Amino acid sequence: MKLEDHIRTVPHFPKQGIMFKDITTLLKHPEAFRFAIKEFRDRYKDSGITKVVGAESRGFIFGAVLAHELHCGFVPARKPGKLPAKTISQEYELEYGKDSLHIHVDAIEKGDKVLVVDDLIATGGTVKAVVEMVKKLGGEIIECAFLIELTFLKGRGKLGSLPVFSLITYDSEE
Amino acid sequence: MKLEDHIRTVPHFPKQGIMFKDITTLLKHPEAFRFAIKEFRDRYKDSGITKVVGAESRGFIFGAVLAHELHCGFVPARKPGKLPAKTISQEYELEYGKDSLHIHVDAIEKGDKVLVVDDLIATGGTVKAVVEMVKKLGGEIIECAFLIELTFLKGRGKLGSLPVFSLITYDSEE
Repeated sequence: MKLEDHIRTVPHFPKQGIMFKDITTLLKHPEAFRFAIKEFRDRYKDSGITKVVGAESRGFIFGAVLAHELHCGFVPARKPGKLPAKTISQEYELEYGKDSLHIHVDAIEKGDKVLVVDDLIATGGTVKAVVEMVKKLGGEIIECAFLIELTFLKGRGKLGSLPVFSLITYDSEE
Repeated sequence: MKLEDHIRTVPHFPKQGIMFKDITTLLKHPEAFRFAIKEFRDRYKDSGITKVVGAESRGFIFGAVLAHELHCGFVPARKPGKLPAKTISQEYELEYGKDSLHIHVDAIEKGDKVLVVDDLIATGGTVKAVVEMVKKLGGEIIECAFLIELTFLKGRGKLGSLPVFSLITYDSEE
C-alpha cells in the first residue's frame, strides 16, 4: 500500500504558501490506517518499549493506538492548563512567540523505555520539547516515530543523535 | 478489574469545587487501558460500525484505538481553524460563552454507522454537537460511548433517545 495516496495536500492552509498535509483522509480509510499502525507495530514490537508519549492533539491518535498495540502505557503531552496533577513543562519556539508542553511528573518512571510519536515532524520544536521532558524524568528515548516527515524543514537535526523514523517523507513543499 | 481504581480524582481542578477525573493514571497502566478497550470492543464488534468519531482532544485517545480495533475509520471532531478542508460546524454552550466543533464534510458518508466516543460525559454539550453534525451528514448514530459518565450532570438527557454507554459512573462530586 502507498500510504502517500491517502494523504490529502491542502494548498495554502493555514496560510499562503503552506501545502498542508491532511491525515484525516488516511484515518477514515480503515485499511490505510491499519497498514500504518502495522508498520509501526512490526518495527517496535520487540523493542521493550514501556511508554508511548504523544503530543496534543494529533499525536494522541497514533500514540494511543501504538501504546495499545505494544501493550504499554500512553502518556499525553499537553498544552498548558490541561493536566491536573504535578507537571514538568518545556517551552518551544513557534514562528511568532513561544508555547509550552507539559507532562505529569509521575507519567514517566526512571528507566522507562519511551517511544515518542507524532503525526508529523516539521521543524521539530514540539518533539524536541517532549524529548527534553522525558529525559528530565529519567526515561530513555528509544526512537521518535512519525507518520510524515517534512525532510526539507530538517526537524531531525534538532534531535541530535536520537533515532528518528517516518513512514512518509516529503522533500519539498509540493 | 475495577477501572475506577485507575482514575485519579484531583480536587479543585480546574477550579474550586470541581473534583476532576484524571484518566492519565489509567492510560499509563497497560492492563487497565487494554481492559477498557476490550470492554468497548466486545460491546461493538458485531454492530456493523463503519466510523468512530472522537472529539478534540481526549476523545482522540479512546476514539482512535476503538476505530482501529473495530476495523473502521476514525473521524476527528476538532476546534475551529484546525481542519484544512471543507467542514460543517456546530456551536455548543460553555459555562461562560460558546465554542464550536467542526468535522470535514467528506468524513461521514450517508449511511455510515457511527459510534461517538469521548473520555467523559458531563453536561453533554460536546457530544450533542458531534451527534448533530453526524446526523446532518447522513450518518446513523449507533451509540455514544464514554469511559466516564458524571450521571449527576444529566448529560445523557441532552441526547434524547440515543443509546448511551459508559464504563464508569459517578453519582456525585466525590
